[in-house]
Amino acid sequence: MKVDAIEIYQAVEKFIGQEVVLEGWVRNHRKQKEFGFIDFNDGTYFSTMQIVYDNMLKEFEEIQKIRVGSSVRVHGTLVESPKENQPFEIRASHIELLGDSPEDYPIQPKRHSREFLREQAYLRPRTNLFGAVFRVRSVAAMAIHEYFQSHHYVYVHTPLITTADCEGSDQMFKITTLDLNHLPMKDGQVDLSKDLFGKQAYVTGTGQLHGEAFAMAYKRIYTFGPTFRTENSNTKTHANEFWMIEPEIAFCDLNGLMDVEEEMLKFVVQYVLDHCPTEIDFLDQFVEKGLKEKLQKLVASTFTRISHHDVVTILKEADVAWEFTPDYGEDIAKEHERYITEYFNGPVFITDWPKDIKAWYMKVNEDGKTVAAVDLEVPGAGELMGGSQREEDYDKLLARSKEMGVDFSTVDWYCNLRRYGGCYHSGFGMGFERLLIYLTGVDNIRDVIPFPRTPKSCDY
Amino acid sequence: MKVDAIEIYQAVEKFIGQEVVLEGWVRNHRKQKEFGFIDFNDGTYFSTMQIVYDNMLKEFEEIQKIRVGSSVRVHGTLVESPKENQPFEIRASHIELLGDSPEDYPIQPKRHSREFLREQAYLRPRTNLFGAVFRVRSVAAMAIHEYFQSHHYVYVHTPLITTADCEGSDQMFKITTLDLNHLPMKDGQVDLSKDLFGKQAYVTGTGQLHGEAFAMAYKRIYTFGPTFRTENSNTKTHANEFWMIEPEIAFCDLNGLMDVEEEMLKFVVQYVLDHCPTEIDFLDQFVEKGLKEKLQKLVASTFTRISHHDVVTILKEADVAWEFTPDYGEDIAKEHERYITEYFNGPVFITDWPKDIKAWYMKVNEDGKTVAAVDLEVPGAGELMGGSQREEDYDKLLARSKEMGVDFSTVDWYCNLRRYGGCYHSGFGMGFERLLIYLTGVDNIRDVIPFPRTPKSCDY
Repeated sequence: MKVDAIEIYQAVEKFIGQEVVLEGWVRNHRKQKEFGFIDFNDGTYFSTMQIVYDNMLKEFEEIQKIRVGSSVRVHGTLVESPKENQPFEIRASHIELLGDSPEDYPIQPKRHSREFLREQAYLRPRTNLFGAVFRVRSVAAMAIHEYFQSHHYVYVHTPLITTADCEGSDQMFKITTLDLNHLPMKDGQVDLSKDLFGKQAYVTGTGQLHGEAFAMAYKRIYTFGPTFRTENSNTKTHANEFWMIEPEIAFCDLNGLMDVEEEMLKFVVQYVLDHCPTEIDFLDQFVEKGLKEKLQKLVASTFTRISHHDVVTILKEADVAWEFTPDYGEDIAKEHERYITEYFNGPVFITDWPKDIKAWYMKVNEDGKTVAAVDLEVPGAGELMGGSQREEDYDKLLARSKEMGVDFSTVDWYCNLRRYGGCYHSGFGMGFERLLIYLTGVDNIRDVIPFPRTPKSCDY
Repeated sequence: MKVDAIEIYQAVEKFIGQEVVLEGWVRNHRKQKEFGFIDFNDGTYFSTMQIVYDNMLKEFEEIQKIRVGSSVRVHGTLVESPKENQPFEIRASHIELLGDSPEDYPIQPKRHSREFLREQAYLRPRTNLFGAVFRVRSVAAMAIHEYFQSHHYVYVHTPLITTADCEGSDQMFKITTLDLNHLPMKDGQVDLSKDLFGKQAYVTGTGQLHGEAFAMAYKRIYTFGPTFRTENSNTKTHANEFWMIEPEIAFCDLNGLMDVEEEMLKFVVQYVLDHCPTEIDFLDQFVEKGLKEKLQKLVASTFTRISHHDVVTILKEADVAWEFTPDYGEDIAKEHERYITEYFNGPVFITDWPKDIKAWYMKVNEDGKTVAAVDLEVPGAGELMGGSQREEDYDKLLARSKEMGVDFSTVDWYCNLRRYGGCYHSGFGMGFERLLIYLTGVDNIRDVIPFPRTPKSCDY
């Protein structure tokens, strides 16, 4: 009977004494004169299982030649293990080599540096670390879909190709079908009317504006897709391609938005704890000591809600020699974020930010100085989500778009949403990789993206 | 108590006699002298509900001025309806106008042409037709995730930005951060070393190659994300941006692959029938007569499996004046697809295609002439999925890549998967929009994509 490792791990008792056929890969192979042990993994479960074989098998000598990395088919019987730390082992009756692996196979059973493994991006999911990270990525993605779908949100695939200039075109990749070495010219400029879309098109960094249009039809929507930034920045937190979740909710004010953010985050964290216990234990042990406790604590915590003004007051009164002086009119720095989450010993929603440092579509508060924006600061993660109530007043939005230098001709339809049954509404964005860094303890964005794209680095 | 329409529809009995507060939009408004009726929809449920108000309300005159498209807050009591075709109505005690809508609001309660609505892409989800289509889209997406996650597949976010030339670079959009009007030059050519990635990068049309790398770690993976084609083609089935699902499965041959395709498709169709009954009924009534029966029939059917060779024999023997003569060495035409699904009265897997018309990475059969490829033909949908067993032999793959003119330097890592514990494995691709056309009966791809991108058309 062909089975997957996960089927066995989900019901070990049932399989004890059963004959099974397994197909997978050799993670390690320890040979002795009369018998041998293979650490076997078929990818469906994090832990390897031990295959025991001995020289009673007629292909004993063949088996002993099987190298790390090879794919094999194992016929054997599941037996209780004499060892304490493994629930069972497989006593092999027959082992077939399916695909060989050379002596110089890059992924050997030893600790490789993450830098080395980044250069082997197509092989690294076979390691414990990346095996865990990318399964958590998959499970966390499912958690996000489950949360929103079960709360009656409609999943919207907003377009990636856009001609709208709403974020500032210098932050977007241009796309073209033209031959860069033979560009059609007209009046001394590139003749973009010859391009596929007849004008300059970009790949976008947000689905928010399109998402709002759908929220005005379905009340609750979310997006979950790739986004792009051209930032020429080589840090642990920047990549040029990453995934974002952007919910938009009609008839929802800033407090309602914070309720959703808090509930959603707790749901996703609990879901990962429930569905990836082995992976989280491994990451807790080898990547971030205390990871599991950190995640459990988040689920049990109540998130603080406090205005930017009051945060700055706390920062000013703190007995700390700040590198950046806190200021009521300014953004807060990383050192401030850290302080404030420690101060409240948990996640903090910071609300009502100075309008000049926030986006044009955010609702201006009655004071005329701040906007109904909220950033969620999480201990050990920094800013995990950013959201706002959106300006619902057409005239005010128009005025703000002019003040902030937005090209109105590309967002007229968006502003029109306020003329056609507009309503108070809110939304937020969460960078998926930032969530994964928090969930896994891995601190470099390059290590939570299957094939990361960063400046001068676009391999595979 | 603030409630969503869907909460009421899921438990009407519970709400009868209850006071509720609803926020949503006016789809229609019929006024009479002493009372009025509002067709109300808050987007969480397909059907509108009827709000009844009379001139006992002190704001009666104000209410009568409320126009179609406006957003309102309704306070009222749920009562059993005197009308047969509605389970309940809301007797209003208070109605507040939240957001006005002008007389010339484009979406009036009448039948609009799909062409007109395409020009109002940001408003069309508010209509019955697109309200249904895009909810089906969301639910079908969730069905796909549920199927694969519950069968232990890992969801992989393969990169969209790529420098690999595996599909032929002329089919991909180039992306750049360079200023097209001031390109840096070197030796008479554009100096791409100055671009963000230091070389020509593209947005890709497939995640298959990267997916295979992950299948060699997790056994079963799937991708689900946007893809791009530069095709300059204005047909009902072409768009330049669309979504694809690409599962890859290690230790799986062509028969195993067909099992997965059949099971997955039936699961998704049943899931949509279960979760969108009202939408499917509407689409059945107004878009494709017999849609529901078609979908139910698919779930109950057994898919035929037959080789390309045998299909061509059937076509040749058919008493039909073909526009395109069937040929053992050629692709089959749309008229052939239709004939063969009618011939077998159900979905048909066509296997073992002539190798010259298929991709370089497909496994060549023992006859040396055909490849282990399979297309799934579905009545009323045409080719819904295309897949193959992948060539697992390094030398054969190399030879095929040369024969087919693939730039090996960009796919060396992919070929290496065969050297490092390679195994027999298979995968398929399904265009998500093609599935949606089948599920909704809507026949133009522009009408199943929220904001479609087609040649010379990239609005919103």
